[in-house]
Amino acid sequence: MNYDEIFKSAIDRLHEEGRYRVFVDILRHKGQFPNAHCFGGNGPKPITVWCSNDYLAMGQHASVIEAMEKALHKVGAGSGGTRNISGNTRYHTELEAELADLHGKEGALLFTSGYVSNEAALSTLGKLLPGCVIFSDELNHASMIAGIKSSGCAKRVFRHNDLEHLEELLAAEDAGTPKLIAFESVYSMDGDVAPIGAICDLADKYNAITYLDEVHAVGMYGPRGGGISERDLVADRLTLIEGTLGKAFGVMGGYVAASKTLIDCIRSYAPGFIFTTSLSPVLVAGALASVRHLKVSSEERDAQQQAAAMLKGKFTAADLPLMPSVTHIVPLLVGCPVKAKRISDILLAEYGLYVQPINFPTVPRGTERLRFTPGPQHSAEMMDELTAALVEIWSRDEIQLAA
Amino acid sequence: MNYDEIFKSAIDRLHEEGRYRVFVDILRHKGQFPNAHCFGGNGPKPITVWCSNDYLAMGQHASVIEAMEKALHKVGAGSGGTRNISGNTRYHTELEAELADLHGKEGALLFTSGYVSNEAALSTLGKLLPGCVIFSDELNHASMIAGIKSSGCAKRVFRHNDLEHLEELLAAEDAGTPKLIAFESVYSMDGDVAPIGAICDLADKYNAITYLDEVHAVGMYGPRGGGISERDLVADRLTLIEGTLGKAFGVMGGYVAASKTLIDCIRSYAPGFIFTTSLSPVLVAGALASVRHLKVSSEERDAQQQAAAMLKGKFTAADLPLMPSVTHIVPLLVGCPVKAKRISDILLAEYGLYVQPINFPTVPRGTERLRFTPGPQHSAEMMDELTAALVEIWSRDEIQLAA
Ligand SMILES: Cc1ncc(COP(=O)(O)O)c(C=O)c1O
Ligand SMILES: Cc1ncc(COP(=O)(O)O)c(C=O)c1O
Repeated sequence: MNYDEIFKSAIDRLHEEGRYRVFVDILRHKGQFPNAHCFGGNGPKPITVWCSNDYLAMGQHASVIEAMEKALHKVGAGSGGTRNISGNTRYHTELEAELADLHGKEGALLFTSGYVSNEAALSTLGKLLPGCVIFSDELNHASMIAGIKSSGCAKRVFRHNDLEHLEELLAAEDAGTPKLIAFESVYSMDGDVAPIGAICDLADKYNAITYLDEVHAVGMYGPRGGGISERDLVADRLTLIEGTLGKAFGVMGGYVAASKTLIDCIRSYAPGFIFTTSLSPVLVAGALASVRHLKVSSEERDAQQQAAAMLKGKFTAADLPLMPSVTHIVPLLVGCPVKAKRISDILLAEYGLYVQPINFPTVPRGTERLRFTPGPQHSAEMMDELTAALVEIWSRDEIQLAA
Repeated sequence: MNYDEIFKSAIDRLHEEGRYRVFVDILRHKGQFPNAHCFGGNGPKPITVWCSNDYLAMGQHASVIEAMEKALHKVGAGSGGTRNISGNTRYHTELEAELADLHGKEGALLFTSGYVSNEAALSTLGKLLPGCVIFSDELNHASMIAGIKSSGCAKRVFRHNDLEHLEELLAAEDAGTPKLIAFESVYSMDGDVAPIGAICDLADKYNAITYLDEVHAVGMYGPRGGGISERDLVADRLTLIEGTLGKAFGVMGGYVAASKTLIDCIRSYAPGFIFTTSLSPVLVAGALASVRHLKVSSEERDAQQQAAAMLKGKFTAADLPLMPSVTHIVPLLVGCPVKAKRISDILLAEYGLYVQPINFPTVPRGTERLRFTPGPQHSAEMMDELTAALVEIWSRDEIQLAA
């Protein structure tokens, strides 16, 4: 038994497939997003970041920074305990109330990340409902898949956003079987949107509960940033809405919002909630400021939508392989992990433009892509520069001729 | 199918068992730990916290606060992405190098929490070793149990710290079977310590790899805060050491340290590492300052050990039911969830002293306890006040006469 050989060969497989990941070492500069510096090679080099999920640049918003600084000086760095053992602060309870209100639910519960919230909430719901069958969109995020797996429930995967297939699967189960439909609102690698209302209709018809991941939509859609479910006026029809504090809200952490009873169940039974140091009050204070700001300000949302529309327009005009997207996500199809990485490498090395290639397992093999997330601070000139660079690189022999 | 009824009855079960958890709402004050304020009831009330896992009060240390404030103003609130997609910063790579050095390993990898590091690392190791059997101490933390379960590996539970039982189980497996021994150094609810060297001897004999959770020991033991494995000079014998940034280091986050290859495997294969927004650079900067400080300063460690010894002495002198502990953990046995909660409630309401009752599932039923974590800032007078209060409450009829 040579353990090292086994581990080495696991790494070799990634190299062979061309999907070994090298992390780009960057530092963004508060006040100057999307500008940053990239390290490695010949010292720091200025770059423009095109793939941040801090979609609205709230990570540099004055109200967020100020709230974090204040909390840092008031209560210190960390919480010092789990929520149950000395790690429950005013900040946590206030943010939970704010998030419950954002989604029109009775309660909300914080987790250390969106990943953990999905993992913990789905596994706990599944465990509490004996014999439950979980219906899962085939493109659901890894964290939902982990939660469903850990719930131990039977799983039925329905084709992406396919209502007919979902209904077929629902109808195949016994009427008395507990059923949970788990899906996302904005699918972050394609930029398409789930038919939430129609899925709720099916849930009503087959007496299922619904679990919606709004990670890429909270802060971004709806008049108060309550997500697609707020925009589409269907939030009240969902059993549970899950979100993150690490993307449009610009900080870090995750949460679920639901009825009082359901929140109490997850709070009381989920190991991933119970047995871990609670979110630092510094982060919670920042998220609180961010959520509050985006509840009353649509300026950032509007600017971001305009930026996304503009970039899509420029990519289309330049005949770049834009994938269809009805949201703020702007993906270009490459279809090969090696090529995707190569384009990204050239962009960074020669143009100082940073977009990460998206390869398997984040997206299915053969659909490797570059995924751009223009924000309020990306100007028309920056977009022209990016478009021209992409056109030039795409025309190179090494890209044109590669398999 | 009445979902609400099912969820309600899950909550009712907790009430019936007397282990429904009510979170105490507190705010610590930087510069004044362990003093805090407690909210709820008739407005904020000053309290002394006796159950924080910010063992060394690093959460209020000037170097930590300063580093966080600097990072906040330099790069903003959150990282804005996963480690692979724009969320990898200098702070992350520097802290990983610092942690690798702390444990004398080739590499280290950060996670959003200690919980996630255990869950992600154990499940990934298990999945990469076909047919692996995992040997798990019966008192291992929930996060290790979650990781082992999600690995899909066969599991053999050995009696707590029982070398004979462990050897018996190891010997029962085929010599060619991959084996992993997972255990902790300091068991945080009892305060006892694993015989790390002897477990490594068994690992050598049976060609197993070793996974050590040092969550309650990093920063606290060893000349540089490398944990019990550093103190006992056995760090180099362990395959992997896992730790947290949320307890003695006073901030938030988790990590593993191991060989370059192993770290690369976990980095490349663990969904709980890959598919989540990376730790906020603000937290990472704070943890970096904390780790660096505790590498060169033993003042906090020494003061904390003295405080723990003094409190144990006072509890023993007062005939309080101190559980044996060879570490900084000071547990008093109660043995009943209702009584444990009652004592804790009286302490808080009448004396302004906060210690959380520890009930199932955190500890086995029948071993419910109060767990004190005196720190460098708890004075002898505070300990006398606490001891006297406990003696008074313990003598009350309602406690004496309860089942
Ligand atoms: C759909 C979806 N859900 C959940 C998550 C996890 O959220 P977090 O980054 O806060 O862990 C992500 C991305 O990271 C995501 O894309
Ligand atoms: C033994 C042990 N391992 C891991 C953890 C999880 O660490 P964290 O709080 O950083 O999630 C804890 C406590 O929370 C613990 O007690």
